[in-house]
Amino acid sequence: MSFKVLYECSKTGARIGELITAHGTVETPVFMPVGTQATVKTMTPEELIEIGAQIVLSNTYHLYLRPGHKLIEKAGGLHRFMNWPRPILTDSGGFQIFSLGNLREITDEGVTFRSHLDGSRHFITPEKAIEIQNSLGADIIMCFDECVPYTCEYEEVVSSVERTAKWAARCKEAHRFPERQLLFGIIQGGIFKDLRHRSTKQILSLDFPGYAIGGLSVGEPKNLMYQVLDYTIPMLPDDKPRYLMGVGSPDCLIEGVIRGIDMFDCVLQTRIARNGTVLTSSGKVVVRNARYSEDFSPLDPECDCYVCRNFTRAYIRHLFKTGEILGLRLTTYHNLYFTVRLMDKIKKAIKENNLAEFRDKFLQKYGYEEKEN
Amino acid sequence: MSFKVLYECSKTGARIGELITAHGTVETPVFMPVGTQATVKTMTPEELIEIGAQIVLSNTYHLYLRPGHKLIEKAGGLHRFMNWPRPILTDSGGFQIFSLGNLREITDEGVTFRSHLDGSRHFITPEKAIEIQNSLGADIIMCFDECVPYTCEYEEVVSSVERTAKWAARCKEAHRFPERQLLFGIIQGGIFKDLRHRSTKQILSLDFPGYAIGGLSVGEPKNLMYQVLDYTIPMLPDDKPRYLMGVGSPDCLIEGVIRGIDMFDCVLQTRIARNGTVLTSSGKVVVRNARYSEDFSPLDPECDCYVCRNFTRAYIRHLFKTGEILGLRLTTYHNLYFTVRLMDKIKKAIKENNLAEFRDKFLQKYGYEEKEN
Ligand SMILES: [Zn+2]
Ligand SMILES: [Zn+2]
Repeated sequence: MSFKVLYECSKTGARIGELITAHGTVETPVFMPVGTQATVKTMTPEELIEIGAQIVLSNTYHLYLRPGHKLIEKAGGLHRFMNWPRPILTDSGGFQIFSLGNLREITDEGVTFRSHLDGSRHFITPEKAIEIQNSLGADIIMCFDECVPYTCEYEEVVSSVERTAKWAARCKEAHRFPERQLLFGIIQGGIFKDLRHRSTKQILSLDFPGYAIGGLSVGEPKNLMYQVLDYTIPMLPDDKPRYLMGVGSPDCLIEGVIRGIDMFDCVLQTRIARNGTVLTSSGKVVVRNARYSEDFSPLDPECDCYVCRNFTRAYIRHLFKTGEILGLRLTTYHNLYFTVRLMDKIKKAIKENNLAEFRDKFLQKYGYEEKEN
Repeated sequence: MSFKVLYECSKTGARIGELITAHGTVETPVFMPVGTQATVKTMTPEELIEIGAQIVLSNTYHLYLRPGHKLIEKAGGLHRFMNWPRPILTDSGGFQIFSLGNLREITDEGVTFRSHLDGSRHFITPEKAIEIQNSLGADIIMCFDECVPYTCEYEEVVSSVERTAKWAARCKEAHRFPERQLLFGIIQGGIFKDLRHRSTKQILSLDFPGYAIGGLSVGEPKNLMYQVLDYTIPMLPDDKPRYLMGVGSPDCLIEGVIRGIDMFDCVLQTRIARNGTVLTSSGKVVVRNARYSEDFSPLDPECDCYVCRNFTRAYIRHLFKTGEILGLRLTTYHNLYFTVRLMDKIKKAIKENNLAEFRDKFLQKYGYEEKEN
């Protein structure tokens, strides 16, 4: 298992690399579709392979609650359970648990929380988060970190940075299968430059095979996120993969790659698909709107995916208006395909040393969006 | 467009035939998956072709209300709208409208009803039902008939038989495209032998290219349904296709074919799939039940479908428990595949002149079910 940078853009920080895992090689930069509950919503594994998905993300918190990591271990691990032959990354559950708000209580030892499903009480420590991820058997696993809201005071962020570092050391110590599961460290620090630097130094000192930037895309303006990347990424080693957690709108993917990010994940593509919204080369289209009721053109005239080759906006709108599941399938499929193809175009632009021009051209057509990360 | 009987069983009334339509040839006996709202729930057209579906049924009542037959006509017809290249049969809407209960009012001229969606008022005549089906453009279309509940009194059934005959004549008269859309007549008469005979004579006298037996599978015991078939089918001409409407449980498919039925449709397969129930060679399995939580075997160990080759009961149960759409997709796919394969086995048994033995063997393993038609 290793990471290699194969090519670096001469004008930006962008790079092309390959990450070798126990279930195959991932070409970076890469977008990872999210399969929270051991399924990328509405998609079969075969369809994910068809659209070119190289790796999927799944959520430790959800799988721990249902069906339970022990059951998945019995099934032969997460790959076999969900019948996905390619690499998987599992998050540590930290982000979900810290999002529970009043349902959780934090100490240096770990977090006590109540399940959002049935209110049952659970205690998760860094060691437990790794134990669960060892049972699930993903190719890349994540340290259990403390995520704080964007609106936090400086002192609270200091404390989360310190705790995240201590927990990262415990995670590394607890990890039983470093030879087949890459454990990534997570950098916190909110929007404070000195704390991002402090966190980066602490996490780097533990020497992980990859580094994630956490605590972004949590409500802050995009420019602020780009600033954090601008002063954090230069501190990261060139020879390790860099993962920007929870970020994946088209513009952020391009801006992230330009700054040297290798890996992304985001629920945007599948979530907006379920509301009848699709990503197209000319920006978002809310296909469930009445204006598309007699539009017999494809979702995106420039897309060559299965959906755009075979179905019209009018038909897909009809499926949404009548509550038919095929509608969700078609918009999800297209959105994921669109994003995977975008990553291909980004890679091509890196190789041709014109990623900045590609960004300008893409955004001019797509339109800039402030809100969605 | 024509129908030919290619082979007749020497021991039963079963036959193998081919029905040539504007969108290709259908080998009979055939099971038609139901795509009520221009989509077989959860399935893509490609998946339907993959499982071997030859023809699908769609519902005039639903399409008339949403998205409207005029919109579908503008899209180039139902085949293009839903991207289904093979034959389609549309019902007349009669069954749905008569199921509306208090929301409708019947005269000899037609039926006034209120939409189940928004309460809007509509008036459908036999001529209108044909006009809608002409716009939709299915390969096989159905006469607008009066369906009465199983519990009806004799006199009410008499009146429905008479009205159905008059309406059938008006439907034939109104049909604009007999050369590219086969209009089938529908026989009513409830569970009264003399009324079934009367209705059959009346409908046959109008000379349709195919005949459907309606008003069955509406709550009556299966044996009563078989009795009706036993005294109705012998009156039908050999050289026309015979369609048993709304019937399609595994045992009824075999019993229907044995009595000389060529075509079936049923929502059972897709409906029970959505509740987490699958058809298997050993009977129904409610895969969402807790007993399957650690069952790592396929839905049906004797099935070779995509689902059974790739996923376990434990995984599919997890998808149901977590409300994931992939669960519905997998059970639906398997149930339809199971049924199409059953029809193949039935055809093979007809050719080998051992359909009765096949039935006995199948039912011994599958188990006999009184309730579901
Ligand atoms: Zn597309
Ligand atoms: Zn199967």
